[in-house]
Amino acid sequence: MEEKEISQAVISRLPRYFRYLGELKDTGKERISSQELSGIMKVTASQIRQDLNNFSKFGQQGYGYNVEFLYTEIGKILGLHKKHHLVLIGAGNLGQAIANYMNFEKRGFIISGIFDIDQDLIGKKVRDIPVRSMEELESFVKEHNIDIGVLTIPKDAAVEAAKRLVSCGIHGIWNFAHVDLNVPEDVLVENVHLSDSLMKLSYNINRYGESKSGRSGKQ
Amino acid sequence: MEEKEISQAVISRLPRYFRYLGELKDTGKERISSQELSGIMKVTASQIRQDLNNFSKFGQQGYGYNVEFLYTEIGKILGLHKKHHLVLIGAGNLGQAIANYMNFEKRGFIISGIFDIDQDLIGKKVRDIPVRSMEELESFVKEHNIDIGVLTIPKDAAVEAAKRLVSCGIHGIWNFAHVDLNVPEDVLVENVHLSDSLMKLSYNINRYGESKSGRSGKQ
Repeated sequence: MEEKEISQAVISRLPRYFRYLGELKDTGKERISSQELSGIMKVTASQIRQDLNNFSKFGQQGYGYNVEFLYTEIGKILGLHKKHHLVLIGAGNLGQAIANYMNFEKRGFIISGIFDIDQDLIGKKVRDIPVRSMEELESFVKEHNIDIGVLTIPKDAAVEAAKRLVSCGIHGIWNFAHVDLNVPEDVLVENVHLSDSLMKLSYNINRYGESKSGRSGKQ
Repeated sequence: MEEKEISQAVISRLPRYFRYLGELKDTGKERISSQELSGIMKVTASQIRQDLNNFSKFGQQGYGYNVEFLYTEIGKILGLHKKHHLVLIGAGNLGQAIANYMNFEKRGFIISGIFDIDQDLIGKKVRDIPVRSMEELESFVKEHNIDIGVLTIPKDAAVEAAKRLVSCGIHGIWNFAHVDLNVPEDVLVENVHLSDSLMKLSYNINRYGESKSGRSGKQ
């Protein structure tokens, strides 16, 4: 398969294709046209064709896409055919929510270890995984072939934890702390900044309200 | 202030400016140049000037930006000078994590009510807010001037809850369920699809690994 550099915008859309195709596959759908997919996904058909053309000739003009093939191939592009081993740092509510979300495991993301500094949590189990002391972090990461660290801790602790993970040779960090991490180029970071997302919603509500009440805008 | 249509890409970046400017303000910084801000935020100075020019003349050539003014103005643009009243639907781990995150309240997002269908949770308190039965949802939303619904429930329940919120005249939905909601145009939805974010990380790790091992790519 010939591959070119793909923009992060396209990559951001791939998981959504994967999600919809998985649902179509589960309903027994075998082929789908870009028009049909467009109707379901509320994206233009030309956007769909453009996005999928980035990877290879998934579709055949006039015949549409083979759902299962496209699903499998996008899964491979997303690296979902390989298992990832995760450590979760922070066993509070957010950490527990993530640990309990079974779907990640179905996609090959295995939570191997959970860590916290809270003595009341250490030794307890979350989904049968014992919460360990942060002192064990480095040895655990190295012994268990961990490639992703998940940070569900406050920002100062997250900066510190990221440094320690990087020094153990981790490949990726899934960061929920409200801070941008400075890590070497070969460590990939994906941020989930919940406040940022809520502010974006606030902007859109505010802007929509203003446009409804005329262009005068200011209140 | 004259305002033009702003792209969602710029809007997505605003909360990050707001976050950095808040931190600068807290350290007592009064003025900052786009170059300096560029160094801290790891965005080009020209991107910063372009983004901020969308709104008004925040900066003055050669003098840089007034940190506090810029912080306040971006806050207003994001609608953070107004209070938002939220209901949280789903009092599980994720719902509790969000309810306990005090920073939202500091930004004007007040969680007024928490709802669940789980009889074991109903009547309990999360941060002094009692968990209510879903039967009370409509009357509560109308009585308490709620404008945002937060969905931290599985996808089928989320689709149903969104319908009920829309029928009560809610303005925005902050959706954590792994589904795209179909709502009328005047209801703004901001999605936090955690699986999508994790898959994007997986893609980047996978791709980085392949590029390191040469352009042959396939494994």
